[in-house]
Amino acid sequence: MKKEIRVRCWIDVDSEKFFGLGRVELLDHVDKTGSIAKAAKSMGMSYKKAWEMVEDLNARGNKPYVVSRKGKKGGGAELTGTAKKVLTAYVKLKKDLDAVAKKHGNILKLV
Amino acid sequence: MKKEIRVRCWIDVDSEKFFGLGRVELLDHVDKTGSIAKAAKSMGMSYKKAWEMVEDLNARGNKPYVVSRKGKKGGGAELTGTAKKVLTAYVKLKKDLDAVAKKHGNILKLV
Repeated sequence: MKKEIRVRCWIDVDSEKFFGLGRVELLDHVDKTGSIAKAAKSMGMSYKKAWEMVEDLNARGNKPYVVSRKGKKGGGAELTGTAKKVLTAYVKLKKDLDAVAKKHGNILKLV
Repeated sequence: MKKEIRVRCWIDVDSEKFFGLGRVELLDHVDKTGSIAKAAKSMGMSYKKAWEMVEDLNARGNKPYVVSRKGKKGGGAELTGTAKKVLTAYVKLKKDLDAVAKKHGNILKLV
């Protein structure tokens, strides 16, 4: 029997989900592929949904998260400095939370 | 604009959710009311659903979480020592996680 403490974290803006695991994954894929369309495809997500997630980040965030990039081969999308800083901070937060959960591992002997 | 870091935690057994916020609330209500039926009612939950949650805790847990109690006025339900220990440990875990989230409050200035 495998027992495990699970932790999820996200950021609400005005009590509405704004930034969590789904958007972290999308931004990571945009960063790797340089394109919202490619990011969506590699995640098995519709382009429409990915585009809406990016639009919401850009609209409700302090600053844009993803910007268009023009290039000789048709351009694409890239993360802004804000997006990169938020991603880094989120990863640190999640890591610290997981470390705390690990310290509470004794609870697994009780359940 | 109100920004907030949210944290949720739960325990999986064999990759299936076993113990989280819903069950914490149910057990708290069983403890206060001394009855699964009253607990369900006060939470706006069907008796069937509450009963199934208790059954699953009792079936998949190390030890029973809720036991029947016989009484002069018809009896009811009460938490076992195991349930109480798990509840206490869960509350501590959640408190520590929330404290870590609070320390990462700077992320809210970035998003």
